[in-house]
Amino acid sequence: MNKKAAAPLRGIIPPMVTPLSGKNTLDIEGLHRLIEHIIGGGVHGLFLLGTTGEGPSLSVKLKYELVKEACTIIAGRVPVLVGITDTSYSESIKLAEHSADCGANAVVLAPPFYFPTGQPELLEYLEHLTPQLTLPLYLYNMPSMTKVDICVDTLCKASKIEGIIGFKDSSGNMIRFHEYLTAMKDRPDFSLLIGPEELLGESVLFGGFGGVAGGANIYPKLFVDMYNAAVAGNIAEVRKLQTEIFRLRRMYFYGHYSSTFIKGVKCALNIMGICSDFMAEPFHAFRQPEREKVAIILKEMNLI
Amino acid sequence: MNKKAAAPLRGIIPPMVTPLSGKNTLDIEGLHRLIEHIIGGGVHGLFLLGTTGEGPSLSVKLKYELVKEACTIIAGRVPVLVGITDTSYSESIKLAEHSADCGANAVVLAPPFYFPTGQPELLEYLEHLTPQLTLPLYLYNMPSMTKVDICVDTLCKASKIEGIIGFKDSSGNMIRFHEYLTAMKDRPDFSLLIGPEELLGESVLFGGFGGVAGGANIYPKLFVDMYNAAVAGNIAEVRKLQTEIFRLRRMYFYGHYSSTFIKGVKCALNIMGICSDFMAEPFHAFRQPEREKVAIILKEMNLI
Amino acid sequence: MNKKAAAPLRGIIPPMVTPLSGKNTLDIEGLHRLIEHIIGGGVHGLFLLGTTGEGPSLSVKLKYELVKEACTIIAGRVPVLVGITDTSYSESIKLAEHSADCGANAVVLAPPFYFPTGQPELLEYLEHLTPQLTLPLYLYNMPSMTKVDICVDTLCKASKIEGIIGFKDSSGNMIRFHEYLTAMKDRPDFSLLIGPEELLGESVLFGGFGGVAGGANIYPKLFVDMYNAAVAGNIAEVRKLQTEIFRLRRMYFYGHYSSTFIKGVKCALNIMGICSDFMAEPFHAFRQPEREKVAIILKEMNLI
Amino acid sequence: MNKKAAAPLRGIIPPMVTPLSGKNTLDIEGLHRLIEHIIGGGVHGLFLLGTTGEGPSLSVKLKYELVKEACTIIAGRVPVLVGITDTSYSESIKLAEHSADCGANAVVLAPPFYFPTGQPELLEYLEHLTPQLTLPLYLYNMPSMTKVDICVDTLCKASKIEGIIGFKDSSGNMIRFHEYLTAMKDRPDFSLLIGPEELLGESVLFGGFGGVAGGANIYPKLFVDMYNAAVAGNIAEVRKLQTEIFRLRRMYFYGHYSSTFIKGVKCALNIMGICSDFMAEPFHAFRQPEREKVAIILKEMNLI
Repeated sequence: MNKKAAAPLRGIIPPMVTPLSGKNTLDIEGLHRLIEHIIGGGVHGLFLLGTTGEGPSLSVKLKYELVKEACTIIAGRVPVLVGITDTSYSESIKLAEHSADCGANAVVLAPPFYFPTGQPELLEYLEHLTPQLTLPLYLYNMPSMTKVDICVDTLCKASKIEGIIGFKDSSGNMIRFHEYLTAMKDRPDFSLLIGPEELLGESVLFGGFGGVAGGANIYPKLFVDMYNAAVAGNIAEVRKLQTEIFRLRRMYFYGHYSSTFIKGVKCALNIMGICSDFMAEPFHAFRQPEREKVAIILKEMNLI
Repeated sequence: MNKKAAAPLRGIIPPMVTPLSGKNTLDIEGLHRLIEHIIGGGVHGLFLLGTTGEGPSLSVKLKYELVKEACTIIAGRVPVLVGITDTSYSESIKLAEHSADCGANAVVLAPPFYFPTGQPELLEYLEHLTPQLTLPLYLYNMPSMTKVDICVDTLCKASKIEGIIGFKDSSGNMIRFHEYLTAMKDRPDFSLLIGPEELLGESVLFGGFGGVAGGANIYPKLFVDMYNAAVAGNIAEVRKLQTEIFRLRRMYFYGHYSSTFIKGVKCALNIMGICSDFMAEPFHAFRQPEREKVAIILKEMNLI
Repeated sequence: MNKKAAAPLRGIIPPMVTPLSGKNTLDIEGLHRLIEHIIGGGVHGLFLLGTTGEGPSLSVKLKYELVKEACTIIAGRVPVLVGITDTSYSESIKLAEHSADCGANAVVLAPPFYFPTGQPELLEYLEHLTPQLTLPLYLYNMPSMTKVDICVDTLCKASKIEGIIGFKDSSGNMIRFHEYLTAMKDRPDFSLLIGPEELLGESVLFGGFGGVAGGANIYPKLFVDMYNAAVAGNIAEVRKLQTEIFRLRRMYFYGHYSSTFIKGVKCALNIMGICSDFMAEPFHAFRQPEREKVAIILKEMNLI
Repeated sequence: MNKKAAAPLRGIIPPMVTPLSGKNTLDIEGLHRLIEHIIGGGVHGLFLLGTTGEGPSLSVKLKYELVKEACTIIAGRVPVLVGITDTSYSESIKLAEHSADCGANAVVLAPPFYFPTGQPELLEYLEHLTPQLTLPLYLYNMPSMTKVDICVDTLCKASKIEGIIGFKDSSGNMIRFHEYLTAMKDRPDFSLLIGPEELLGESVLFGGFGGVAGGANIYPKLFVDMYNAAVAGNIAEVRKLQTEIFRLRRMYFYGHYSSTFIKGVKCALNIMGICSDFMAEPFHAFRQPEREKVAIILKEMNLI
């Protein structure tokens, strides 16, 4: 594959949850249904093994299996991105090779997350790692998990490394996203994507390329509509859809971002009959009271 | 092995650096020399694959190899503890099994470090994981890396889980270490160890069981002497040794704890002719200016 | 004054810098020119003694003098808001009384900032303090300085205290600003203002009431234009003005928000011949290299 | 007064709580009893208007009154230190002048605490302010409140400014306290004091000059005994007294340091019949359940 040839990704690329039927087993039927559900919403790509996909919590074996199964099911209908973030350099490269072998289109990499790296160390790490990959790479900023916040200058330098074709920012820092946009305004070939779905509308209004919205596991069309409305500059529609996104997120957002978010999304998918809500350790599925709350919101929004 | 039978560990258990000759290769000869060097200093145990051992940065293959080689070389002369901390529950258990097979004496576990867990989630995780292990477990508090700070109440509850026999606190929070000591004062069977070598003296003076001092890779006898002086309540000797510890740490402590620390220790060991100073990604060995600084201190202290 | 009668403020209410001619002296002529310059830009109000106004760094005497002088000069042409944030409850009330006596229209209050308060303590504090005031109050969220981040639920409760008529959020957390907007959507009588000028456009596009933009000291019309474009939903214009705001902020934003920001704004105003760039301790005016950089940007933007 | 002539303070210098009978009124009779109680315990000085004294929460008027009354009552029996920390440079100087006029022996200054200063800015601020004072100055490190953590290099430089004669560290970072001790080991004329009472014993064992222990408001002799035992190197006694200190602190330490601490100390003093437990805003006295808990501990320790 020619890494340079890849057009910059635009649109909605949901970070897919990983359907599990046990601590170390995939829910294969759920995976089939989930992929069809998401693709059916008109998304522009699919991101496996991200934070929402509980990537770091899965065993090596399970990660490899998930990538293989998902790529087979997706079968080229949308681009597939695979998260290869790992504290071990060699494990990241091996998973990238496996992803290429399975037919994935790109990999996504956050900084190694045990030892926090300085910005120059991070750049050096990217300079070493990127040439080892056959797939193009999206850099991923996720400071709440990695303890490293990728600064504007580092993004500019990283964007010049051959093979790095985009950036996903999940910091939630919208002031800095404007700084990224400003710094990269002459790089239409470099994809700037936003993580938090609450900021999807405005990031696209101001020139962002799209988003990696976790809520799109449940309601993919809502986020595709938001992307389209924002690209069209239809501010009335953007405001209406923003209200819907904030209705939806009551299912999975209340205070404790990461784990509540994934629990809520899996719970909704389970109620919708799509896949299991089993969580990888150290987390566990929502219990009855939260489950009832999720069901009420799903009904309100005509999602069940 | 009877997990209950283990006597609580007391003394100095250095967190061994992992000698590497390349990105994914052990420096086997260096490993032999390093183990002899450390055991020769009179230590009371050896801790593999901790933070100082760059555990999380090593590939699965390399971790397994290191445990096997080190256990063979140590050959029961001192207890061997193996760090099994991982973001994946299954990988932690597998490494623990491998460690038991190789003859290790205990495992050491910090909370999974991608997603930060709440205290109740952490306890639940420990309740699930501990019964899966054949070796006894030391819980490991390392909030700067794991984003989870184990509170006093959690320690008390965890100490009642069968199979958890000790605790290593690397938070550097000495006020809280006194709280741990106070809360566990009726548990002479439960080993309370401190990480930072700067606090070794006082932690033992106040009833701590010993320490996991990284500097003991370079100068194991210094820390064994400190432990003995503190157990004896010889405050004059403790103060003298504290001065020596602060002379030593100028090699590896200046500002940025984790990576500078490991770089400095590996650099010193390399200058001493013990092992390679190769670092796992994302870090790299000290360059010439820092190396010269380390050499000067080694000479001053008659370590070369 | 009838506190309930106040219409909710909308638009641009610049946080005025405090022109100083010495450690404890106002630059009165500069103050005259600055007020005319800002009002001339079409702003909708003026905020004295905020963070940008170095309020907490001024002596009691100087604060009182500034309020008196500024109210006299403004003479009712725009509403005047006075920051009364203080670690001492009594001092806050006294300054509020003085402000009312001078003809100010409202006061602005962030939580006391030495001891961080919990959310219930903060509410109790507001319930005690607000009835003591004759002027209506805007609550001010400035967690980087006060160590207290006002949560959505606290805002909802505070908005029901009689006399609290608005909220200024300078956290820079745009996700949470959407949460505030969502929570307060049925309160057209309650003014939700944003601090950071980088987020002014989108906050108004999504229903915010306006902003307290520090850069409006230098170039008030730019921010008034942005407010108007966003109210009109003119996204093309909003994007163009956003580019201008990001050109402007190169003067005063690079890395260290608070002090660099104020230094840069005062430096620009000094170059523009408006007022002194003297800073209250512990800060000091930009030196020659930074001053030259500011001058270049002012020229580029035709501001000198 | 000759600022150089002051001998470095050693021993226990309690940070006195400020007895209040209302929001802006001193409890004068309580103040008399409290001072006699503390001095009766054999302390080596008294520190007014610190964090424990709720200094920043008091009005200017009340601070001045407290300093005057306390100096009159103490009447030279022990050295008096007055906290002059303020966000306004001029207010700090004025309070220092007033303190000198009232007969205080030294002032204590933490960095201005609204805007966090960088280390060079802090040094410049100290170089400007110190010559304005007639009394010698103790620098005060309180990062949890001031957002500024005074680094070792800054302490070394500050200790060379004429008029700065000591340092009180309330960071609770014992590793760094050892670094301060190491850096200042050739300065027997410069007083290094520790804030947290949990670390008093070890800090003195390793060469510290004493402590500013808040619990000494309640039980001054306990801390004086600890100081003496540590100076004598009597480790058995130190351990016994440490146990007592940890029994005592159950009254006022559980989770939320600053406010719970002051509430608990005032509550105990009130139960002991010494002074009112009225708190300055934004805090309030312990309610009945906590009060009963405090009473039980006071009884257990024979303090009532």
